[in-house]
Amino acid sequence: MADLRGGIDLGGTKIQTAIVDADGKVLGQSRRPTPTDGGPEDVAAEMAASLREAADEAGVQTETLVGVGVGSPGDADERTGVVSGARNLPGWEGSFPLAATLKEALDAEVRVGNDVQVATEAEFHLGAGREFQSLIGVFWGTGVGGGLVLDGKPWLGRGAAGEIGHMVVKRDGAKCPCGRKGCMEAYAGRGAMEAEARRQHEEGTKTDLFKLMHKHEKDRLTSGIWERALDHGDHLAEKLVDRAIEALGTGIASAVNLLDPEAVIIGGGLGVRFGERYMGPLTKEMGKHLFVDERPPAVRVASLGDLGGAVGASLLVSS
Amino acid sequence: MADLRGGIDLGGTKIQTAIVDADGKVLGQSRRPTPTDGGPEDVAAEMAASLREAADEAGVQTETLVGVGVGSPGDADERTGVVSGARNLPGWEGSFPLAATLKEALDAEVRVGNDVQVATEAEFHLGAGREFQSLIGVFWGTGVGGGLVLDGKPWLGRGAAGEIGHMVVKRDGAKCPCGRKGCMEAYAGRGAMEAEARRQHEEGTKTDLFKLMHKHEKDRLTSGIWERALDHGDHLAEKLVDRAIEALGTGIASAVNLLDPEAVIIGGGLGVRFGERYMGPLTKEMGKHLFVDERPPAVRVASLGDLGGAVGASLLVSS
Repeated sequence: MADLRGGIDLGGTKIQTAIVDADGKVLGQSRRPTPTDGGPEDVAAEMAASLREAADEAGVQTETLVGVGVGSPGDADERTGVVSGARNLPGWEGSFPLAATLKEALDAEVRVGNDVQVATEAEFHLGAGREFQSLIGVFWGTGVGGGLVLDGKPWLGRGAAGEIGHMVVKRDGAKCPCGRKGCMEAYAGRGAMEAEARRQHEEGTKTDLFKLMHKHEKDRLTSGIWERALDHGDHLAEKLVDRAIEALGTGIASAVNLLDPEAVIIGGGLGVRFGERYMGPLTKEMGKHLFVDERPPAVRVASLGDLGGAVGASLLVSS
Repeated sequence: MADLRGGIDLGGTKIQTAIVDADGKVLGQSRRPTPTDGGPEDVAAEMAASLREAADEAGVQTETLVGVGVGSPGDADERTGVVSGARNLPGWEGSFPLAATLKEALDAEVRVGNDVQVATEAEFHLGAGREFQSLIGVFWGTGVGGGLVLDGKPWLGRGAAGEIGHMVVKRDGAKCPCGRKGCMEAYAGRGAMEAEARRQHEEGTKTDLFKLMHKHEKDRLTSGIWERALDHGDHLAEKLVDRAIEALGTGIASAVNLLDPEAVIIGGGLGVRFGERYMGPLTKEMGKHLFVDERPPAVRVASLGDLGGAVGASLLVSS
């Protein structure tokens, strides 16, 4: 039982944890909803409780782990373990010493990193990107996040690289949740798609999206609701998903024109759900904008699924 | 006189050559117009003649040089020395063994590389980028080219990285000389700006741009003609340069959101001429789209000027 690591994927909706061996195999896991009120301390307590459950399942104590890695939203400082401005988490506008707090709770070394970057590295080391030396990870969910691996190593820039969702695809275009205009996420993020669906629905456009949401007792248009609406031939859902695919293809092609990587890995809630179904349209949209269009990069759907974030986080811990 | 290198910057308009010592100091230089007819052999002969002139000025024979580097347009294969698809050069649609041909003519080792990438590396090693470890070079001229240095090393991707001019700034936007739509170059490239000025002039928009072009006996709207028109308060010139700056700011911000580099270096014919004059508007346009807007990268005008390409090319030769 040597060389086991813990991984925690801290999301706006759920906390996913895993105990991972040296080969990347998951020996225990747990999932809890992310607290929607309170503050960073409450979120950290749930994270610790969830990791202990995963450790129980794996039959280990957290203090025997080589360490615990955390993939976090907001600005996660790998050096200090402090996470700032995690605006999709309750009361987390400021800075919170997440690594130190979890170290105390779990009696184990804790490293924090950016959630999307660690998920990208998980796909690079263990998932759909294993055969490549350079790739762009595109995580298509509530927002659109990105991670970069160049020449086999993560590229973090000055700490904030990978914001592919905020590359501009249409100058003076749609308003983005970030407050700017024309970002890829303004068309492709689940949050922006829902806001646009709501606006058009209120203006009288026919759609079953919100009927399906209530029927399945959701409080938002989840990727599953979008999929059901598409299966029902809902025109508004089709139109908005097509619009998202156009924006993704445009923005990803821009990123490829700049970096010329071997591969693009599509993950995230919508990415994993729609990746295969929309691979044709997505690569066609990309192709319209690729400067070197005779040898496009490989485009693959992330293969680690929901556990990718937690497994990737465990890789933050060096042996 | 040991350790001297030759550098050749092969452009669509001119061939610039230099003899450079180990500290990057230029000991001799020469410039010739690029042949406008004939084929690759004729261009190579002019390149060799120009380098010999530079060597004469430096008081050396080309066979005593450590080697000669060439920054070339088109697809320059560093490994084989073959240059393909240099469409702005006469009869160079196919492949031509440029390194081998020049080696024969100059009796020296010859290395070829991408013109924009070598100019970026020149700014990184010797010019405006000296103090940074990561930067994006943006060469604003007839087209808009880009080069990348990440963690102190050139990033070439699969050989075609850096095409910042073909990042999309406006989906379904203006037609680009590359045949696609909405690229940064479709708004900011000197070629596209001239085509748009001509179109609006023919439709009746008042402008002195073409009058100035004829007066100064040019056959195209050079960066100098644009500058004169601005100095005269020409409205169309102002409108089109503002539009170019908007596109540059948008595309550069997208690239910064993806890579988070320490610096952006603005070079090229228009970049060097207008860089300081438009630094304020450019950084303001960038700021509108930067995801982490509280710490923008440093933005600097290329400092090696016209010789940057040739000096950068000489760096292709290892000692």
